[in-house]
Amino acid sequence: MRCDVLAVGTELLLGQIVDTNSSWIGEQLAAHGISSHVQVKVGDNIGRITDQLRTRLDEADAVIMCGGLGPTHDDLTREAIAQVMGVELLHDDDVAEAIIQMFASRGRRMAANNLRQALVPRGATVIPQKRGTAPGLICPVGGKVVYAVPGVPHEMHEMMTRAILPDLARRSGRTSVIRSRVLRTWGESESGLNERLDAVIAELDQPGTDKPTLAFLASGWEGIKVRLTAGSATAADADAILGRWETRVRSLVDDVVFGVDDETMESVVLALLDARGQTLAVAESVTGGLVTGRLTSVPGSSRVLRGGVVSYASEVKFDLLGVTPGPVVNERAAVEMARGVRAKLGASVGLSLTGVAGPDEQDGIAVGTLFVGLVMADGAEHVTTYRLPATRDQMRQMSVISALNFLRLQLAAD
Amino acid sequence: MRCDVLAVGTELLLGQIVDTNSSWIGEQLAAHGISSHVQVKVGDNIGRITDQLRTRLDEADAVIMCGGLGPTHDDLTREAIAQVMGVELLHDDDVAEAIIQMFASRGRRMAANNLRQALVPRGATVIPQKRGTAPGLICPVGGKVVYAVPGVPHEMHEMMTRAILPDLARRSGRTSVIRSRVLRTWGESESGLNERLDAVIAELDQPGTDKPTLAFLASGWEGIKVRLTAGSATAADADAILGRWETRVRSLVDDVVFGVDDETMESVVLALLDARGQTLAVAESVTGGLVTGRLTSVPGSSRVLRGGVVSYASEVKFDLLGVTPGPVVNERAAVEMARGVRAKLGASVGLSLTGVAGPDEQDGIAVGTLFVGLVMADGAEHVTTYRLPATRDQMRQMSVISALNFLRLQLAAD
Repeated sequence: MRCDVLAVGTELLLGQIVDTNSSWIGEQLAAHGISSHVQVKVGDNIGRITDQLRTRLDEADAVIMCGGLGPTHDDLTREAIAQVMGVELLHDDDVAEAIIQMFASRGRRMAANNLRQALVPRGATVIPQKRGTAPGLICPVGGKVVYAVPGVPHEMHEMMTRAILPDLARRSGRTSVIRSRVLRTWGESESGLNERLDAVIAELDQPGTDKPTLAFLASGWEGIKVRLTAGSATAADADAILGRWETRVRSLVDDVVFGVDDETMESVVLALLDARGQTLAVAESVTGGLVTGRLTSVPGSSRVLRGGVVSYASEVKFDLLGVTPGPVVNERAAVEMARGVRAKLGASVGLSLTGVAGPDEQDGIAVGTLFVGLVMADGAEHVTTYRLPATRDQMRQMSVISALNFLRLQLAAD
Repeated sequence: MRCDVLAVGTELLLGQIVDTNSSWIGEQLAAHGISSHVQVKVGDNIGRITDQLRTRLDEADAVIMCGGLGPTHDDLTREAIAQVMGVELLHDDDVAEAIIQMFASRGRRMAANNLRQALVPRGATVIPQKRGTAPGLICPVGGKVVYAVPGVPHEMHEMMTRAILPDLARRSGRTSVIRSRVLRTWGESESGLNERLDAVIAELDQPGTDKPTLAFLASGWEGIKVRLTAGSATAADADAILGRWETRVRSLVDDVVFGVDDETMESVVLALLDARGQTLAVAESVTGGLVTGRLTSVPGSSRVLRGGVVSYASEVKFDLLGVTPGPVVNERAAVEMARGVRAKLGASVGLSLTGVAGPDEQDGIAVGTLFVGLVMADGAEHVTTYRLPATRDQMRQMSVISALNFLRLQLAAD
């Protein structure tokens, strides 16, 4: 089965908004075994939208249209679908009532044009909104189908998951349930993972049931994801297949797997500390607060994180953290920073980062060098050095995840 | 003149990479007065690439193809263009020599397939590479033109600016030089800016030469950009037009303009402090280090930024910053944090942020509330309160720029 994507909105063509929606949809389709060969952006012009929709429908079995469902005269997706279906738009009382209720519940005045969002092509099925005002649509066209979803990402994600992916599965005649599991890794390149998983990949390539597909997804500073996807008669069966193969994969690369599915490096580190009843304090120089900034993005991080000191100037390292005056980009300074911040903030664990992000080297230390210091709850001290990419932004972002991973490995080893 | 965009790469369809290239190209085309009606993503399949290229060429005057110029058998852009032109691919000695030199200069071994990148459709003009290995191409097809650029963003940007935008300008018969100026704003909505600039916009809509176009570009947490674009016989003329209209625009909205072109809120604040010979220290609670994280993204920030304290736990506020024990999300606590961090780190200026990012309210203070405290170089104290969006991530990001803007306004007023 093939499903193409048509993103609607002049702001997409002008580069005012990047079309991340079709990328997300493409990832979901692939994970559900549905091909997507062409994805198109078109502006708010009824002739061009209908042209593109007709062409996509000629080639594909299904088309997902994203955006153009708002209340203004620029929002033309409903009209375009009605024209291509050759039907009229009807006012849907239930949808109108839901929109009126949504405005009332938020105490907002509703402009009359919001009821444009209650127009539905004759013969289409409504996907009720759970978060905004514009409903989604499932529109049969001959033996094919056009879906319409709002351009607001979280509204679109919710409708895709709840209504469209299941509908596509049903139409593709697939009765199996598709499940996937993502192993998140840090510290190994994609080709390195590929090599280490060679035997598993070869086995998966052999014919046979009960075999998931395996894909690598590079996520930049977030590491590389290894995604297993399996189909079976029931969710429990599919999960059992995933479980067996997850064990196989982990037996080869467990040292670089830091989390599963929605876990992040920061959520994993916080959970490990929380489980041990330990607290954390961080001293940052080169990363300037990015480590604590990332840790505090996790709700509930206040149970674990006492806080941090951004010791950007050397005197702050000496005066506030008790670092021995002298050069401050080396292993000794890193350990002293970790010791100092742990004592000063009364935390069980102290973590520190000092390094050179550039543009120039410092004290003869090359751009891209990072020293991470760590003092554990029992007082044990660790320090390590990384050579990271030499552009300022990359070096700093990779420093954050490298330091958190160093802490994770020490916690796991204890 | 109309120029469509064709982005090539299966990884784009699978959502492994978001296609930011066509957005950037769309923005550049719009700024140069060239329309772009359809932008397409297609996978690494020769039949589908040539189909899409033919359709785009039927409709538009020019097509920019992005990606698919690498050295592997999956890189099919050169072949697709040759097929559509109806010509063969020729080995270009100059391009081959440049590729060999590039590898030699970096001390890297060159695999033989890299010379695939020296293949050029007969009749095409090469755009020499200045940063990587794959050259760009300018390929005449009948009276129309196909451009090919690499998918690596910085290589693509450089070729667009150096070769393709000027070539498009020449083909469109335009002899004028296009220049633009971006005024960066914070603190006013797009509709608010629109209203305040009503008179200027009406004047620009009147016929007449010497008038730039005006566009609003929403940039989320980075504020809203007001872009003026003018064409004239010379760059100096165009700049003079921009200068006159920038003055007009500023006369109406200068209070919300924080920077011009590539300036950011953090670079502007650092420059203001640097010009005054003042240093800065920051105490962060709700933002957990994001303010100093952002300031230290600017090379040279160490001249101004002493550092910061992330006082996430209340005891860190009391013990390290000298905040009076008691509730810590209010104006008093904000001022005490700013005072404390300024004294502790020996900075001229102290800035602080305390607030509630959620998911739950704290001490009866609603999610989305931010208090910013400030102690200036002369000891003057300021404090303010913001009500920000209530999702955790948005609230924290908007807190960062709101606090920096508060500091900017106080520095400018002094």
